[in-house]
Amino acid sequence: MKKVLVETSARHIHLSREAVDILFGEGYQLTNIKDLSQPGQFACQERVTVVGPKKSIERVSILGPERKASQVEVSFTDARTLGVSAPVRESGDVANSAPCKLVGPCGEVEISEGVIIAKRHIHFDTATANEMGIADKQIVKVKIDSDRTTIFDDVVCRVSDAYAFAMHIDTDECNAACAFGEIYGEIIK
Amino acid sequence: MKKVLVETSARHIHLSREAVDILFGEGYQLTNIKDLSQPGQFACQERVTVVGPKKSIERVSILGPERKASQVEVSFTDARTLGVSAPVRESGDVANSAPCKLVGPCGEVEISEGVIIAKRHIHFDTATANEMGIADKQIVKVKIDSDRTTIFDDVVCRVSDAYAFAMHIDTDECNAACAFGEIYGEIIK
Repeated sequence: MKKVLVETSARHIHLSREAVDILFGEGYQLTNIKDLSQPGQFACQERVTVVGPKKSIERVSILGPERKASQVEVSFTDARTLGVSAPVRESGDVANSAPCKLVGPCGEVEISEGVIIAKRHIHFDTATANEMGIADKQIVKVKIDSDRTTIFDDVVCRVSDAYAFAMHIDTDECNAACAFGEIYGEIIK
Repeated sequence: MKKVLVETSARHIHLSREAVDILFGEGYQLTNIKDLSQPGQFACQERVTVVGPKKSIERVSILGPERKASQVEVSFTDARTLGVSAPVRESGDVANSAPCKLVGPCGEVEISEGVIIAKRHIHFDTATANEMGIADKQIVKVKIDSDRTTIFDDVVCRVSDAYAFAMHIDTDECNAACAFGEIYGEIIK
Protein backbone atom coordinates (compact mmCIF):
# COMPACT_ATOMS: atom_id res chain seq x y z
CA MET A 1 0.00 0.00 0.00
CA LYS A 2 1.41 3.31 -1.10
CA LYS A 3 0.49 6.15 1.24
CA VAL A 4 1.00 9.85 0.74
CA LEU A 5 0.58 12.73 3.19
CA VAL A 6 -2.40 14.83 2.08
CA GLU A 7 -2.01 18.56 2.63
CA THR A 8 -4.75 21.13 2.05
CA SER A 9 -3.76 24.32 0.27
CA ALA A 10 -5.96 27.19 1.40
CA ARG A 11 -6.34 30.11 -0.99
CA HIS A 12 -3.03 31.85 -1.64
CA ILE A 13 -1.11 34.04 -4.06
CA HIS A 14 2.24 33.83 -5.79
CA LEU A 15 3.50 37.27 -6.81
CA SER A 16 5.83 38.40 -9.57
CA ARG A 17 8.67 40.77 -8.69
CA GLU A 18 6.79 43.56 -10.51
CA ALA A 19 3.67 42.94 -8.43
CA VAL A 20 5.66 43.05 -5.17
CA ASP A 21 7.16 46.38 -6.25
CA ILE A 22 3.73 47.88 -6.87
CA LEU A 23 1.86 46.32 -3.93
CA PHE A 24 4.53 46.76 -1.26
CA GLY A 25 6.98 49.30 -2.68
CA GLU A 26 9.99 49.25 -4.98
CA GLY A 27 12.54 46.66 -3.92
CA TYR A 28 10.43 45.35 -1.02
CA GLN A 29 11.43 41.91 0.26
CA LEU A 30 8.66 39.51 1.36
CA THR A 31 9.04 38.19 4.91
CA ASN A 32 9.30 34.42 5.40
CA ILE A 33 7.28 33.46 8.48
CA LYS A 34 7.00 29.72 7.83
CA ASP A 35 8.75 27.23 5.60
CA LEU A 36 6.32 24.99 3.70
CA SER A 37 6.65 21.29 2.94
CA GLN A 38 7.99 21.97 -0.56
CA PRO A 39 11.69 22.91 -0.33
CA GLY A 40 12.33 26.65 -0.72
CA GLN A 41 8.64 27.58 -0.53
CA PHE A 42 7.46 29.74 2.36
CA ALA A 43 4.42 31.56 3.76
CA CYS A 44 4.85 35.34 4.00
CA GLN A 45 3.87 37.72 6.75
CA GLU A 46 2.39 40.10 4.15
CA ARG A 47 -1.19 39.76 2.93
CA VAL A 48 -3.14 41.21 0.02
CA THR A 49 -6.77 41.77 -0.86
CA VAL A 50 -8.09 39.96 -3.93
CA VAL A 51 -10.86 41.93 -5.62
CA GLY A 52 -13.31 40.26 -7.97
CA PRO A 53 -16.28 41.65 -9.90
CA LYS A 54 -18.64 40.47 -7.14
CA LYS A 55 -16.79 40.65 -3.82
CA SER A 56 -13.33 40.92 -2.32
CA ILE A 57 -11.43 38.49 -0.14
CA GLU A 58 -9.15 40.20 2.35
CA ARG A 59 -5.89 39.11 3.96
CA VAL A 60 -5.04 36.43 1.41
CA SER A 61 -1.74 34.64 2.13
CA ILE A 62 1.25 35.18 -0.11
CA LEU A 63 3.58 32.26 -0.74
CA GLY A 64 7.20 33.00 -1.63
CA PRO A 65 9.55 33.15 -3.34
CA GLU A 66 8.48 35.40 -6.20
CA ARG A 67 7.49 33.78 -9.48
CA LYS A 68 7.62 34.78 -13.13
CA ALA A 69 3.88 35.51 -13.22
CA SER A 70 1.44 36.32 -10.43
CA GLN A 71 -0.98 33.48 -9.71
CA VAL A 72 -4.00 33.36 -7.40
CA GLU A 73 -5.06 29.88 -6.28
CA VAL A 74 -8.60 29.67 -4.96
CA SER A 75 -11.35 27.10 -4.41
CA PHE A 76 -14.64 27.05 -6.34
CA THR A 77 -16.19 28.46 -3.16
CA ASP A 78 -13.81 31.43 -3.31
CA ALA A 79 -14.25 31.85 -7.08
CA ARG A 80 -18.01 32.15 -6.53
CA THR A 81 -17.41 34.72 -3.76
CA LEU A 82 -15.15 36.75 -6.05
CA GLY A 83 -17.50 36.33 -9.01
CA VAL A 84 -14.90 34.89 -11.37
CA SER A 85 -14.96 31.81 -13.56
CA ALA A 86 -11.65 30.21 -12.68
CA PRO A 87 -10.48 27.06 -14.51
CA VAL A 88 -9.01 23.94 -12.88
CA ARG A 89 -5.32 24.11 -13.86
CA GLU A 90 -1.89 22.91 -12.91
CA SER A 91 0.21 25.56 -11.19
CA GLY A 92 1.93 27.80 -13.73
CA ASP A 93 -0.63 27.12 -16.47
CA VAL A 94 -2.39 30.46 -16.26
CA ALA A 95 -2.99 31.34 -19.94
CA ASN A 96 -6.55 32.64 -20.32
CA SER A 97 -7.43 31.93 -16.69
CA ALA A 98 -9.53 34.42 -14.71
CA PRO A 99 -8.60 38.06 -14.05
CA CYS A 100 -8.73 39.96 -10.74
CA LYS A 101 -7.32 42.95 -8.94
CA LEU A 102 -4.76 42.69 -6.12
CA VAL A 103 -4.60 45.43 -3.49
CA GLY A 104 -1.60 45.95 -1.21
CA PRO A 105 -0.59 48.74 1.18
CA CYS A 106 1.30 50.67 -1.54
CA GLY A 107 -0.72 50.06 -4.67
CA GLU A 108 -2.96 47.94 -6.85
CA VAL A 109 -2.28 45.47 -9.65
CA GLU A 110 -4.82 44.36 -12.23
CA ILE A 111 -3.96 40.93 -13.57
CA SER A 112 -5.65 39.92 -16.81
CA GLU A 113 -5.16 36.23 -16.02
CA GLY A 114 -3.79 34.17 -13.14
CA VAL A 115 -6.77 33.12 -11.03
CA ILE A 116 -6.98 29.32 -11.09
CA ILE A 117 -8.31 26.41 -9.11
CA ALA A 118 -5.30 24.18 -8.57
CA LYS A 119 -5.67 20.72 -10.06
CA ARG A 120 -5.11 18.16 -7.34
CA HIS A 121 -1.61 16.76 -7.53
CA ILE A 122 1.13 14.83 -5.82
CA HIS A 123 4.67 16.13 -5.55
CA PHE A 124 7.19 13.29 -5.77
CA ASP A 125 10.89 13.56 -5.16
CA THR A 126 12.64 11.49 -7.84
CA ALA A 127 13.71 8.70 -5.47
CA THR A 128 10.16 8.13 -4.16
CA ALA A 129 8.75 8.25 -7.71
CA ASN A 130 11.26 5.65 -8.88
CA GLU A 131 10.59 3.44 -5.90
CA MET A 132 6.83 3.61 -6.56
CA GLY A 133 7.17 3.33 -10.33
CA ILE A 134 5.60 6.74 -10.95
CA ALA A 135 6.43 8.89 -13.98
CA ASP A 136 6.13 12.67 -14.22
CA LYS A 137 2.64 13.66 -15.46
CA GLN A 138 1.20 10.22 -14.63
CA ILE A 139 -2.44 10.26 -13.52
CA VAL A 140 -3.38 8.21 -10.45
CA LYS A 141 -6.28 7.85 -8.01
CA VAL A 142 -5.93 8.57 -4.31
CA LYS A 143 -8.25 7.08 -1.69
CA ILE A 144 -8.82 8.94 1.54
CA ASP A 145 -10.33 6.87 4.34
CA SER A 146 -12.31 9.17 6.61
CA ASP A 147 -15.78 10.06 7.84
CA ARG A 148 -16.50 10.76 4.16
CA THR A 149 -14.31 8.25 2.37
CA THR A 150 -13.50 9.56 -1.09
CA ILE A 151 -11.42 8.43 -4.04
CA PHE A 152 -9.97 11.35 -5.94
CA ASP A 153 -9.44 10.40 -9.57
CA ASP A 154 -7.41 12.38 -12.10
CA VAL A 155 -4.62 13.24 -9.66
CA VAL A 156 -1.54 14.40 -11.55
CA CYS A 157 1.90 13.24 -10.40
CA ARG A 158 4.72 15.76 -10.62
CA VAL A 159 8.23 14.44 -10.21
CA SER A 160 11.29 16.57 -9.45
CA ASP A 161 14.35 16.54 -7.25
CA ALA A 162 13.10 19.92 -6.04
CA TYR A 163 9.95 18.38 -4.54
CA ALA A 164 9.08 16.74 -1.25
CA PHE A 165 6.62 13.84 -1.33
CA ALA A 166 3.11 15.19 -0.55
CA MET A 167 -0.35 15.46 -2.12
CA HIS A 168 -2.06 18.84 -2.38
CA ILE A 169 -5.83 19.35 -2.49
CA ASP A 170 -7.90 22.49 -2.03
CA THR A 171 -10.29 23.37 0.78
CA ASP A 172 -13.41 22.17 -1.07
CA GLU A 173 -11.75 18.80 -1.66
CA CYS A 174 -10.56 18.68 1.95
CA ASN A 175 -14.10 19.34 3.21
CA ALA A 176 -15.66 16.82 0.81
CA ALA A 177 -13.31 14.09 2.00
CA CYS A 178 -13.03 15.15 5.67
CA ALA A 179 -9.29 15.27 5.08
CA PHE A 180 -8.69 17.17 8.30
CA GLY A 181 -5.56 16.97 10.43
CA GLU A 182 -2.67 14.68 9.55
CA ILE A 183 -4.16 12.40 6.95
CA TYR A 184 -2.71 9.99 4.41
CA GLY A 185 -4.11 8.87 1.07
CA GLU A 186 -3.63 5.55 -0.64
CA ILE A 187 -2.20 5.89 -4.15
CA ILE A 188 -4.02 3.66 -6.65
CA LYS A 189 -2.39 3.30 -10.07
CA MET B 1 -24.25 1.01 -15.86
CA LYS B 2 -26.52 2.46 -13.20
CA LYS B 3 -26.74 6.23 -13.36
CA VAL B 4 -28.30 8.59 -10.86
CA LEU B 5 -29.04 12.31 -11.13
CA VAL B 6 -26.75 14.17 -8.72
CA GLU B 7 -28.32 17.17 -7.05
CA THR B 8 -26.46 19.62 -4.82
CA SER B 9 -28.18 20.70 -1.63
CA ALA B 10 -27.09 24.19 -0.66
CA ARG B 11 -27.38 25.13 3.02
CA HIS B 12 -30.98 25.05 4.22
CA ILE B 13 -33.21 24.71 7.25
CA HIS B 14 -36.15 22.53 8.20
CA LEU B 15 -38.31 24.14 10.88
CA SER B 16 -40.57 22.69 13.53
CA ARG B 17 -44.08 24.12 13.91
CA GLU B 18 -42.98 25.75 17.17
CA ALA B 19 -40.03 27.43 15.46
CA VAL B 20 -42.28 28.79 12.68
CA ASP B 21 -44.61 30.23 15.33
CA ILE B 22 -41.75 32.06 17.05
CA LEU B 23 -39.80 33.15 13.97
CA PHE B 24 -42.74 34.22 11.79
CA GLY B 25 -45.68 34.56 14.18
CA GLU B 26 -48.31 32.29 15.72
CA GLY B 27 -50.03 30.15 13.08
CA TYR B 28 -47.92 31.49 10.19
CA GLN B 29 -47.93 29.33 7.05
CA LEU B 30 -44.69 28.99 5.05
CA THR B 31 -45.00 29.96 1.37
CA ASN B 32 -44.15 27.31 -1.24
CA ILE B 33 -42.26 28.99 -4.08
CA LYS B 34 -40.77 25.87 -5.69
CA ASP B 35 -41.45 22.16 -5.52
CA LEU B 36 -38.28 20.10 -5.04
CA SER B 37 -37.38 16.76 -6.61
CA GLN B 38 -38.50 14.85 -3.51
CA PRO B 39 -42.31 14.55 -3.52
CA GLY B 40 -44.03 16.97 -1.10
CA GLN B 41 -40.83 18.91 -0.35
CA PHE B 42 -40.65 22.57 -1.31
CA ALA B 43 -38.51 25.68 -1.07
CA CYS B 44 -40.08 28.55 0.87
CA GLN B 45 -40.16 32.25 0.16
CA GLU B 46 -39.21 32.98 3.77
CA ARG B 47 -35.60 33.11 4.92
CA VAL B 48 -33.91 33.12 8.30
CA THR B 49 -30.54 34.13 9.69
CA VAL B 50 -28.44 31.40 11.26
CA VAL B 51 -26.26 32.76 14.06
CA GLY B 52 -23.19 30.88 15.25
CA PRO B 53 -20.61 31.73 17.91
CA LYS B 54 -18.28 33.14 15.23
CA LYS B 55 -20.41 34.64 12.46
CA SER B 56 -23.94 34.66 11.05
CA ILE B 57 -25.22 33.50 7.70
CA GLU B 58 -28.14 35.54 6.45
CA ARG B 59 -31.05 34.65 4.20
CA VAL B 60 -30.80 30.89 4.60
CA SER B 61 -33.45 28.94 2.66
CA ILE B 62 -36.21 27.14 4.47
CA LEU B 63 -37.45 23.85 3.06
CA GLY B 64 -41.01 22.82 3.82
CA PRO B 65 -43.10 21.19 5.06
CA GLU B 66 -42.50 21.56 8.79
CA ARG B 67 -40.74 18.73 10.61
CA LYS B 68 -40.80 17.35 14.13
CA ALA B 69 -37.48 18.99 14.99
CA SER B 70 -35.69 21.97 13.46
CA GLN B 71 -32.60 20.98 11.48
CA VAL B 72 -29.94 23.15 9.84
CA GLU B 73 -27.99 21.49 7.04
CA VAL B 74 -24.71 23.19 6.21
CA SER B 75 -21.39 22.40 4.56
CA PHE B 76 -18.06 22.26 6.41
CA THR B 77 -17.34 25.64 4.81
CA ASP B 78 -20.49 27.06 6.42
CA ALA B 79 -19.81 25.34 9.75
CA ARG B 80 -16.41 27.02 9.86
CA THR B 81 -18.03 30.38 9.04
CA LEU B 82 -20.56 29.89 11.86
CA GLY B 83 -17.91 28.58 14.22
CA VAL B 84 -19.70 25.34 15.04
CA SER B 85 -18.47 21.77 15.04
CA ALA B 86 -21.21 20.05 13.05
CA PRO B 87 -21.16 16.27 12.60
CA VAL B 88 -21.77 14.39 9.33
CA ARG B 89 -25.21 12.82 9.84
CA GLU B 90 -28.20 11.43 8.03
CA SER B 91 -31.16 13.78 7.95
CA GLY B 92 -33.22 13.47 11.14
CA ASP B 93 -30.31 12.14 13.21
CA VAL B 94 -29.67 15.33 15.16
CA ALA B 95 -29.01 14.06 18.70
CA ASN B 96 -26.01 15.91 20.13
CA SER B 97 -25.33 17.73 16.88
CA ALA B 98 -24.29 21.41 16.93
CA PRO B 99 -26.36 24.26 18.43
CA CYS B 100 -27.15 27.63 16.85
CA LYS B 101 -29.58 30.53 16.99
CA LEU B 102 -32.20 31.18 14.29
CA VAL B 103 -33.46 34.71 13.73
CA GLY B 104 -36.69 35.51 11.90
CA PRO B 105 -38.74 38.69 11.49
CA CYS B 106 -40.83 37.98 14.61
CA GLY B 107 -38.43 36.33 16.99
CA GLU B 108 -35.44 34.16 17.74
CA VAL B 109 -35.05 30.47 18.53
CA GLU B 110 -32.03 28.90 20.21
CA ILE B 111 -31.67 25.28 19.21
CA SER B 112 -29.43 23.15 21.43
CA GLU B 113 -28.86 20.67 18.60
CA GLY B 114 -29.83 20.38 14.93
CA VAL B 115 -26.88 21.71 12.93
CA ILE B 116 -25.52 18.87 10.81
CA ILE B 117 -23.56 18.24 7.63
CA ALA B 118 -25.79 15.94 5.60
CA LYS B 119 -24.23 12.58 4.85
CA ARG B 120 -24.26 12.05 1.10
CA HIS B 121 -27.12 9.81 0.10
CA ILE B 122 -29.30 8.49 -2.68
CA HIS B 123 -33.08 8.57 -2.50
CA PHE B 124 -34.58 5.52 -4.21
CA ASP B 125 -38.22 4.95 -4.93
CA THR B 126 -38.97 1.31 -4.14
CA ALA B 127 -39.37 0.25 -7.77
CA THR B 128 -35.97 1.64 -8.80
CA ALA B 129 -34.31 0.13 -5.72
CA ASN B 130 -35.78 -3.29 -6.53
CA GLU B 131 -34.76 -3.02 -10.16
CA MET B 132 -31.19 -2.13 -9.15
CA GLY B 133 -31.05 -4.63 -6.29
CA ILE B 134 -30.54 -1.94 -3.66
CA ALA B 135 -31.68 -2.31 -0.04
CA ASP B 136 -32.53 0.49 2.36
CA LYS B 137 -29.38 1.60 4.28
CA GLN B 138 -27.07 -0.10 1.76
CA ILE B 139 -23.74 1.69 1.25
CA VAL B 140 -22.53 2.20 -2.33
CA LYS B 141 -19.94 4.22 -4.20
CA VAL B 142 -20.85 6.81 -6.83
CA LYS B 143 -18.46 7.90 -9.57
CA ILE B 144 -18.82 11.36 -11.04
CA ASP B 145 -17.04 11.88 -14.35
CA SER B 146 -16.10 15.53 -14.66
CA ASP B 147 -13.20 17.97 -14.78
CA ARG B 148 -12.38 16.58 -11.34
CA THR B 149 -13.49 12.99 -11.57
CA THR B 150 -14.30 11.73 -8.09
CA ILE B 151 -15.63 8.53 -6.57
CA PHE B 152 -17.71 9.20 -3.48
CA ASP B 153 -17.55 6.20 -1.17
CA ASP B 154 -19.81 5.62 1.83
CA VAL B 155 -22.97 6.83 0.08
CA VAL B 156 -26.05 5.68 1.98
CA CYS B 157 -29.08 4.43 0.02
CA ARG B 158 -32.50 5.34 1.38
CA VAL B 159 -35.46 3.51 -0.07
CA SER B 160 -39.07 4.63 0.24
CA ASP B 161 -42.19 4.95 -1.84
CA ALA B 162 -42.16 8.59 -0.74
CA TYR B 163 -38.85 9.26 -2.54
CA ALA B 164 -37.87 10.17 -6.08
CA PHE B 165 -34.63 8.68 -7.43
CA ALA B 166 -31.81 11.22 -6.93
CA MET B 167 -28.46 11.59 -5.16
CA HIS B 168 -27.85 14.50 -2.82
CA ILE B 169 -24.43 15.98 -2.06
CA ASP B 170 -23.47 19.25 -0.40
CA THR B 171 -21.76 22.28 -1.92
CA ASP B 172 -18.25 21.24 -0.80
CA GLU B 173 -18.74 17.85 -2.45
CA CYS B 174 -20.19 19.49 -5.57
CA ASN B 175 -17.18 21.80 -5.84
CA ALA B 176 -14.68 18.98 -5.20
CA ALA B 177 -16.21 16.89 -7.99
CA CYS B 178 -17.14 19.72 -10.39
CA ALA B 179 -20.67 18.34 -10.21
CA PHE B 180 -22.14 21.46 -11.77
CA GLY B 181 -25.27 21.58 -13.92
CA GLU B 182 -27.22 18.46 -14.81
CA ILE B 183 -24.83 15.69 -13.89
CA TYR B 184 -25.21 11.95 -13.38
CA GLY B 185 -23.21 9.59 -11.20
CA GLU B 186 -22.48 5.94 -11.78
CA ILE B 187 -23.58 3.74 -8.88
CA ILE B 188 -20.92 1.15 -7.96
CA LYS B 189 -22.02 -1.60 -5.59
